[in-house]
Amino acid sequence: MKNFRKKDFPVSDLRRFIEPGPIVLVSSHWKGKNNIMTMGWHMVMDYSTIGCFIWDQNHSCEMIRKSKECVVNVPTYDIIRKVIGIGNSTGAEIDKFDKFGLTAEKAGKVKAPLIKECYANFECRLVDTSLIRKYSLFVFEVVKAHAAVAPRFPRTIHYRGEGRFMVSGKEVDYARYFKPDML
Amino acid sequence: MKNFRKKDFPVSDLRRFIEPGPIVLVSSHWKGKNNIMTMGWHMVMDYSTIGCFIWDQNHSCEMIRKSKECVVNVPTYDIIRKVIGIGNSTGAEIDKFDKFGLTAEKAGKVKAPLIKECYANFECRLVDTSLIRKYSLFVFEVVKAHAAVAPRFPRTIHYRGEGRFMVSGKEVDYARYFKPDML
Repeated sequence: MKNFRKKDFPVSDLRRFIEPGPIVLVSSHWKGKNNIMTMGWHMVMDYSTIGCFIWDQNHSCEMIRKSKECVVNVPTYDIIRKVIGIGNSTGAEIDKFDKFGLTAEKAGKVKAPLIKECYANFECRLVDTSLIRKYSLFVFEVVKAHAAVAPRFPRTIHYRGEGRFMVSGKEVDYARYFKPDML
Repeated sequence: MKNFRKKDFPVSDLRRFIEPGPIVLVSSHWKGKNNIMTMGWHMVMDYSTIGCFIWDQNHSCEMIRKSKECVVNVPTYDIIRKVIGIGNSTGAEIDKFDKFGLTAEKAGKVKAPLIKECYANFECRLVDTSLIRKYSLFVFEVVKAHAAVAPRFPRTIHYRGEGRFMVSGKEVDYARYFKPDML
């Protein structure tokens, strides 16, 4: 398990990590308890806004709805077994930080904890609750962002359903083919 | 450029291609004209529903809003230069199928064309327009799906911003670690 050294980075760099579509771990805090859920249905909605599908059967759903906060954490391939275990268990029965040997770190702007073992962490505030009932869609504003300084290109995991994942491959730079104002 | 042989597959298998987060090409048809746009901000919203961010400055926006249809096409790494070119030009000035040497194929259930050179094609109907003004968010129901029979694992491209992409890497099967009812 990697011990990442992290630094703050601009919240508007959200897309660098989220737009490629990795599985993320969503951590939350409510009434003295922490929880974590595994989530694959999310999107960048603006340069510092992220939309997340959180089903009302998830124990995290009420915790996030009530606290109006969470942290979106980006795990890497080396902890895939923990990611799966977190998705296959419920915070109603266990303390997932304890069960899966993960470290809850204090965040800067929200009470939900950062997961230390994840490559990047986005502290989020719930800014729109109007789409929760119809679409289970939570709209979050990222208020603080942290990411590891190395490696430059993390091996993220991308879910395909049925227990199969795509592991992120090589990074390629095609900036020279873009119109300058499209970068 | 690959010449994919395709077959229909269940629309509920949408997540296999979309949940990993690839850049997609959105094709549309309105008043006798076809168009294509490049899009990276999307999410699975249900097993046959996809949400897409389509900015009102995109020429495609009005075409899709009026026709209430589109096709979401998944390109592979071998046509990345076309994907960038499509994102850097506007359908108000050029015919993108012609300019980028792509083939418009007749779809089964919508008037928007399939892009033959893409690995997978999802025919979509616009089912919710209420989030367009506030979030540029189009909610589509996938009504017909097509995908190449080979290769089994396409090399998709995932945008990170600033001209950089992640190319999909290896496929791993962890189904044995899932609870059966979570698969």
